[in-house]
Amino acid sequence: MDIGNSHNSLLPVTCNLQLATPVIILVNTQLPENIGAAARAMKNFGLSELRLVAPREPFPNKRAYDLAGHAPEILDNAKLFQTTREAVADMKKVYAATARSREMVKAVYTPAESSGLIAKEKVPAGILFGPERTGLTNEDVTIADSVITIPTANEFTSLNVAQSVVVIAYQLFQSTCNLEHATGNLIHKSEFASKEELQNFFNHLERRLDEVDFWKVAEKKPKMWLNLQNIFTRASLTEQEIRTLHGVLAALK
Amino acid sequence: MDIGNSHNSLLPVTCNLQLATPVIILVNTQLPENIGAAARAMKNFGLSELRLVAPREPFPNKRAYDLAGHAPEILDNAKLFQTTREAVADMKKVYAATARSREMVKAVYTPAESSGLIAKEKVPAGILFGPERTGLTNEDVTIADSVITIPTANEFTSLNVAQSVVVIAYQLFQSTCNLEHATGNLIHKSEFASKEELQNFFNHLERRLDEVDFWKVAEKKPKMWLNLQNIFTRASLTEQEIRTLHGVLAALK
Repeated sequence: MDIGNSHNSLLPVTCNLQLATPVIILVNTQLPENIGAAARAMKNFGLSELRLVAPREPFPNKRAYDLAGHAPEILDNAKLFQTTREAVADMKKVYAATARSREMVKAVYTPAESSGLIAKEKVPAGILFGPERTGLTNEDVTIADSVITIPTANEFTSLNVAQSVVVIAYQLFQSTCNLEHATGNLIHKSEFASKEELQNFFNHLERRLDEVDFWKVAEKKPKMWLNLQNIFTRASLTEQEIRTLHGVLAALK
Repeated sequence: MDIGNSHNSLLPVTCNLQLATPVIILVNTQLPENIGAAARAMKNFGLSELRLVAPREPFPNKRAYDLAGHAPEILDNAKLFQTTREAVADMKKVYAATARSREMVKAVYTPAESSGLIAKEKVPAGILFGPERTGLTNEDVTIADSVITIPTANEFTSLNVAQSVVVIAYQLFQSTCNLEHATGNLIHKSEFASKEELQNFFNHLERRLDEVDFWKVAEKKPKMWLNLQNIFTRASLTEQEIRTLHGVLAALK
């Protein structure tokens, strides 16, 4: 996906995410690349606080920074802990991201549901993500108040740890920001042709079609002509496009 | 995130995704790793058809397979094209994933909105994703009927191409599958203690507290006792946990 910046972003957003910015806690992550990719996704979706519980490779790590893109400061500020318990000591609510059933009683939420809870509770919250191969231990899940499970296609529930962070951060941003809806938004609204300009083009087009006796049977013209106008009306033409179409009509003479 | 399988998945899903399975089209992708990660995410969320337009590195590629996880067959079946036009020739609708504003008129949708459209239109559809550094060219965006933009935090709109596939595939799955909602679901429902078992425990507890004159002032007992029962009732205890609590009470004698 290519890059924009705030000046030409297609979707202006106003976000009250400060009310719902949980700490992302990566437990025993094996690959520094996944730590970096998680940091990048966090920044995309307005999260900033990363905690690492005993990562398998030394940290800070160049391979993490390589994947972090424009979010190096999230890695700079990441806090290291020896145990999950220490990492969540100051949290009021802890969620465990896991797809695996456990021999324990724990409420399970989808990312959308947990996002709603986190936004509503407005207390310091953290989300635990386990290591690549084995996932969170039962001990770590026990620390959590509840579980977040990402619904997947039945036959394949395994998500990469960084991809899980992407999904949960995306959903949190979706659920807790007042996004301006984009439906029907069109780029460069201001350049749309006026109805008068459109009518001038229709006049030009009709004149040319009359000249070449496009209609053949006079009685058919009214309906045919409405249909033709509808095509161009539906296209939401810009001023430039209208000029181009005038040129086309002229050139076809 | 750790791994589950369909047998112990926490969230049973019934999905009509066959009505909304767009083709993922990666244009000029630079890193084979991103092709592999995209394939993995596609499989997680029920998509299967991948097309590659002139990837920068030779394909098939081991680095892609390394990242594809349990989705090698998506790479096996990926079709290669020289141009984007050829890759979309049999599509009825094409969406361009981009965050960058263009000098053109094109409807812009969020992932949730485009998912709704794709599910509703039920025609062969494809989604274009551009190369890592530059994104889709204007020519490729022109081919598309409309644009999908992932809303992000204002100051940072850049998503990795594979992460964009994750988000759009996740949202499509969310929007087009009948997911059983998880709110309040508890693991191992069937093992919850019956109310009779809970009452037996309460009887045991009350007897013990009476024995040690826990209440001190008799008039205070009714309210104190209700509060105590509420704590254990709210905990949704299992049979095993009730047995454990009986054991604790006995041991404290």
